[in-house]
Amino acid sequence: MTAHAYPDAERAAVYRVINERRDMRHFLPDPVDPDVLARLLQAAHHAPSVGFMQPWRFIRITDRPLRERIHALVEQERRATATALGEREDEFMKLKVEGVLDCGELLVVALMDRREQHIFGRRTLPEMDLASVSCAIQNLWLAARAEGLGVGWVSLFEPEALKQLLGMPAGSRPVAILCIGHVEKFYEQPMLQQEQWATRADLAQLVADNHWPEGE
Amino acid sequence: MTAHAYPDAERAAVYRVINERRDMRHFLPDPVDPDVLARLLQAAHHAPSVGFMQPWRFIRITDRPLRERIHALVEQERRATATALGEREDEFMKLKVEGVLDCGELLVVALMDRREQHIFGRRTLPEMDLASVSCAIQNLWLAARAEGLGVGWVSLFEPEALKQLLGMPAGSRPVAILCIGHVEKFYEQPMLQQEQWATRADLAQLVADNHWPEGE
Repeated sequence: MTAHAYPDAERAAVYRVINERRDMRHFLPDPVDPDVLARLLQAAHHAPSVGFMQPWRFIRITDRPLRERIHALVEQERRATATALGEREDEFMKLKVEGVLDCGELLVVALMDRREQHIFGRRTLPEMDLASVSCAIQNLWLAARAEGLGVGWVSLFEPEALKQLLGMPAGSRPVAILCIGHVEKFYEQPMLQQEQWATRADLAQLVADNHWPEGE
Repeated sequence: MTAHAYPDAERAAVYRVINERRDMRHFLPDPVDPDVLARLLQAAHHAPSVGFMQPWRFIRITDRPLRERIHALVEQERRATATALGEREDEFMKLKVEGVLDCGELLVVALMDRREQHIFGRRTLPEMDLASVSCAIQNLWLAARAEGLGVGWVSLFEPEALKQLLGMPAGSRPVAILCIGHVEKFYEQPMLQQEQWATRADLAQLVADNHWPEGE
């Protein structure tokens, strides 16, 4: 325990939200309160970023025909992924992998353009811009869970096609279609675990002292 | 407000930790309680991951000579970055950009090898593995803040050199040197903002409806 530790109840709330956050694919159609959405975006904006570059951009999809075009892109990639999966194709096609048409709010999150100007922390690891955007999305995700809202990160899309659809500038890159909204209930366990797509790894096998984990 | 929302005090704790988390570079040498470290790693392991692939691996550096070799790599890259920054070289060299030798715990976080077997959510966006690891690090970071501990994500290193130093397998990739430890105090604002390296962007300029934000 340190002088800077939060009181037990607050610390417990932080672990609660980390454990109860789920990647949601089932949504109710009810709208998201604009004040809540504003809080979620502020949470995202308070993420760490490499060299404080704040590379995140958010496009809120309020136009229904545009949402339907985005859904068509996702559906196209869902089928392409199923084919690429080979022997697991049928199993994959039975999963619900997105809630693009159902969720109350749809956000596209992207990396800004002109990122090459930012060298601090990125000279040898240019992908740290994506790391920063991912931390922003994780902040938003956790805040949404505390607000009682579900979030699903959909990465089943052809980025160049989505970029064209949204008139995104050269050098930018969309990295997430975020479905945000009310849910009937949160999954007890990660949905892909419940559906037996994959199992949770034993953490002890992923950690080692001074060398690569041998559990691998 | 939804039926799934947390009580106000818990919701406030989640926003508190999001707002008070800092990327720390100043540490006290006191050791980190092993039980706390175990909780932080569990928090990381409960991050979302694309197709539930759990691509994160953690190497805890307990060997002092190894820590010193890692520090030397970071110092080398710090100087290379300074040179690459050109006119901001002197300004950069005055910043404290890492606490590798000072912090109580040093963790290297890496992407596992054999990731090409995982297609779900990665066929067109292979970088989603890094997104997952980044969410795991953000979970750890937030949990650490609630525990009263500071975390600094150092990305100033040549990944191939670090990989060799730690005997990491082909196909794996180190993405973070995490300094974790006790701190005298947390920065009031992001350190790079306090040191006037960069300013916080106006969120309103980073968000737009149905098209690219025009504030750009």
